[in-house]
Amino acid sequence: MSGYTIAIVGATGAVGTKMIEMLGSSSLPINKIKLLASKRSAGKKLYFNDVELTIEETTADSFDGVDIALFSAGGDISKEFAPEAVKRGAIVIDNTSAYRMDPTVPLVVPEVNADAMKNHNGIIANPNCSTIQMMVALQPIRKKYGLKRIIVSTYQAVSGAGAAALEEMKEQAQHMLNDEPYDAKILPSGGDKKHFPIAFNILPQIDVFAEGGYTYEEWKMINETKKIMSDDHIKVSATCVRVPVVSGHSESVYIEVADESATVAGIQDVLRIAPGVELQDDPATQLYPTPLTAVGKKETFVGRIRQDVDEKLGFHMWVVSDNLVKGAAWNSIQIAESLHSLDLVKEK
Amino acid sequence: MSGYTIAIVGATGAVGTKMIEMLGSSSLPINKIKLLASKRSAGKKLYFNDVELTIEETTADSFDGVDIALFSAGGDISKEFAPEAVKRGAIVIDNTSAYRMDPTVPLVVPEVNADAMKNHNGIIANPNCSTIQMMVALQPIRKKYGLKRIIVSTYQAVSGAGAAALEEMKEQAQHMLNDEPYDAKILPSGGDKKHFPIAFNILPQIDVFAEGGYTYEEWKMINETKKIMSDDHIKVSATCVRVPVVSGHSESVYIEVADESATVAGIQDVLRIAPGVELQDDPATQLYPTPLTAVGKKETFVGRIRQDVDEKLGFHMWVVSDNLVKGAAWNSIQIAESLHSLDLVKEK
Repeated sequence: MSGYTIAIVGATGAVGTKMIEMLGSSSLPINKIKLLASKRSAGKKLYFNDVELTIEETTADSFDGVDIALFSAGGDISKEFAPEAVKRGAIVIDNTSAYRMDPTVPLVVPEVNADAMKNHNGIIANPNCSTIQMMVALQPIRKKYGLKRIIVSTYQAVSGAGAAALEEMKEQAQHMLNDEPYDAKILPSGGDKKHFPIAFNILPQIDVFAEGGYTYEEWKMINETKKIMSDDHIKVSATCVRVPVVSGHSESVYIEVADESATVAGIQDVLRIAPGVELQDDPATQLYPTPLTAVGKKETFVGRIRQDVDEKLGFHMWVVSDNLVKGAAWNSIQIAESLHSLDLVKEK
Repeated sequence: MSGYTIAIVGATGAVGTKMIEMLGSSSLPINKIKLLASKRSAGKKLYFNDVELTIEETTADSFDGVDIALFSAGGDISKEFAPEAVKRGAIVIDNTSAYRMDPTVPLVVPEVNADAMKNHNGIIANPNCSTIQMMVALQPIRKKYGLKRIIVSTYQAVSGAGAAALEEMKEQAQHMLNDEPYDAKILPSGGDKKHFPIAFNILPQIDVFAEGGYTYEEWKMINETKKIMSDDHIKVSATCVRVPVVSGHSESVYIEVADESATVAGIQDVLRIAPGVELQDDPATQLYPTPLTAVGKKETFVGRIRQDVDEKLGFHMWVVSDNLVKGAAWNSIQIAESLHSLDLVKEK
């Protein structure tokens, strides 16, 4: 039987299960799916296109015979096993931050920089969820009008922090509706010292704090943008904020373009035909994206495009996409599809 | 008995009930409280400092003998009855948008521009909730370093849309947790054509759309800022967004100051002693404001102050305050207290 052998590392997680689901509708020729996870999950069953598959514990030898390995089990697992997978001839598509800023690793949003994969050394990194959708929305504008500056404030869904965080939010919400006390054990960041409720609350911290008072999530958006756009001169600042939403990241994006001819109508025209974008922008009919209407969709939705009140070359917009789909699983599968169409991966 | 006779118009609403509660702890000498509302609510009972009061229907004659009338029953009620109250010798403190941009009406945040009240003509306007907290946070910085530009993205609580919207959010949340279908009848704006769920969702529309693709809420933040700061040259752009939070508006604020000497530490020093501000800014201990920790408090909380990655004179910060307290009821009562301390109101 022809087609690729594909491993999913972290198959039981929020992103892993979405990868399995979305591979079912991919155009990629698939021979076999291997589901890998921690020892704790080994033996559990999951379905791919109605076929029952048994989850195996991830070991170095798990990657024997694997053509493409999709990693989404945390940075430590990627650092331990991605090199083992590459050693065994697999191409790794890594959905953690482990290799994103490694200069030898392409960081890819297929609509933006699929060509960067041509120089890969076995590992291709999937960008951070909040970066991906911003790149899909801004790259077409950048190609037409140039892009000098980005200021973004995010409204990020809880599923981006994993299935346990989502469960905790729902429990907190139920307690709150019942007027019962509740606590917090996971957010804003499982690895940090303090935890705060997210149900009916807003947390201006995603990941832990780093240089200059910015969080790692904010640095990811700043640094990954420059790498994906291959432009160190774009000014980027980010404020990353968690909101009580199940799935679907929203972003309030301000940009400054270079070309004096830029207009709202011109930007709308560019986005109307841009790959991976769906323009939802009509104030007269209250048409704009929201997380609830974007959930489960592969597109990045853009609306509320308007010129800055004072800056002729400044524009504001509202960008929404499903963080588990385009922000994670779907972008990884698109990378695999691009590897296939660019003839960069071989069946064993 | 000495003290003022104070009328509360819209006594049964989310802001009106908060006004009654907060008048109980005010330093203002109070002789009598009159609770006014629509005909529908007339006859209902509410308590002020454990004294039962009966709500009366608002009529022109309701304001006979009233010294200070706090209006929070919608712009139409203010337009109808505020002139009647003034005609009868009352000073109106109006918490609707009816008179805010009237050049003869002072628009007041007492920490910022109490002096503007000296020229009042009977009506003093309380600014929009999202504007007030931004003014409290930015005015001290402006005084020290100058202020050239503001870009703000808001995360606004549902109580700002009234008690019915809050009830609807809770019902939607319960249905969603039960996996039951649910609809929407109020938000994003009761006066607009379409309605969308707010529970576990984000709506980038507050109030209806107006000029240039901005909503009225966004224009309020832009125009009111210039009026309160008496400076038409400050560049202001806003993106106003509703989030599923009960009370407490959050704002991601970017500013550009004028003075080359500005630093994060300098801004923190300014805010540490600023009136009405509580600095909560220590990434090392994950100290920053959230709506849940700000609810019920009179202060405006500021944290996450950091320099822009690229602009030396650009700074980002996170500003949170209870929209029903400092954003509405408390600011109105502070205006009344300032009228008293500035000797601008007389007992009848």
